[in-house]
Amino acid sequence: MKQVKVYSLALDSFTKAPIVLLTDLDEKTCLPIWIGIFEANSIMIALNKIKVPRPLTHDLAVNLINKLEGQLELIIISGLKEGIYFAELNIKVKDELIKIDARPSDSIAIAVRLDVPIFVNETLIELMVNLEEFKSKIVDEHLKTILDNLREDDFGKYKM
Amino acid sequence: MKQVKVYSLALDSFTKAPIVLLTDLDEKTCLPIWIGIFEANSIMIALNKIKVPRPLTHDLAVNLINKLEGQLELIIISGLKEGIYFAELNIKVKDELIKIDARPSDSIAIAVRLDVPIFVNETLIELMVNLEEFKSKIVDEHLKTILDNLREDDFGKYKM
Repeated sequence: MKQVKVYSLALDSFTKAPIVLLTDLDEKTCLPIWIGIFEANSIMIALNKIKVPRPLTHDLAVNLINKLEGQLELIIISGLKEGIYFAELNIKVKDELIKIDARPSDSIAIAVRLDVPIFVNETLIELMVNLEEFKSKIVDEHLKTILDNLREDDFGKYKM
Repeated sequence: MKQVKVYSLALDSFTKAPIVLLTDLDEKTCLPIWIGIFEANSIMIALNKIKVPRPLTHDLAVNLINKLEGQLELIIISGLKEGIYFAELNIKVKDELIKIDARPSDSIAIAVRLDVPIFVNETLIELMVNLEEFKSKIVDEHLKTILDNLREDDFGKYKM
């Protein structure tokens, strides 16, 4: 297993879907995982320690773990099947280790709240790509999207 | 305490926010609670037993309760302060009863998944309004919204 960290949240400029970008601790390679907007929002709030008027569902999940006397040890991005990533929470209850399957987005949202390490399974390490290349690809795609979106209507606005 | 049930999900036609409508078991009076779109979606999915490709965050919360050997007994819509409703999950772990504060929306999303009773605290019962009246009010407000939204621009479209 390889330890990773949350490098940033980005927006796939092509699909407009949020991406959570995991990198190795040296920030050389990354594993981009496409996630939902709600989960992205929740991760961002936790990373930036933004105060929200009401606890989010992930805050409740953290509360459930704590109140039921569990201790989240780490999370693992455990596999990839048909384009979908899987993850698991490793929770210690007394002396027993309990593994709970979860989406990577939920797992990461909980991990950043409890400040526990995030690991990537062996089988996924080879899928990690160069961070700088990936970032430049996002920028290129951003440009592509702008061009694609320039429909005739938009030009029409500027016709006199 | 009074037992209630989820009567339906509705959309406030004025604010466009989702409402979860709790009613007494005879469907005479209701307590409308305004909730977020994500939570409304999650409650709807559970009520209609819709199969989703991936578990939602509330499915994970249910999993956490089960795997950590808790048993959700009931939920209580416990109070109202400055226009915000509060709720609590009552979870039994071995012989101990643990109360966990949560948003009503999260509590209801979890309760409908585990099919446990929902209660409303004494202090909130007097806030329950006639169900039929509330439903007709939603319709009236719907009309009001349509009229409010008819801005000059909209009429302008039909000018030749």
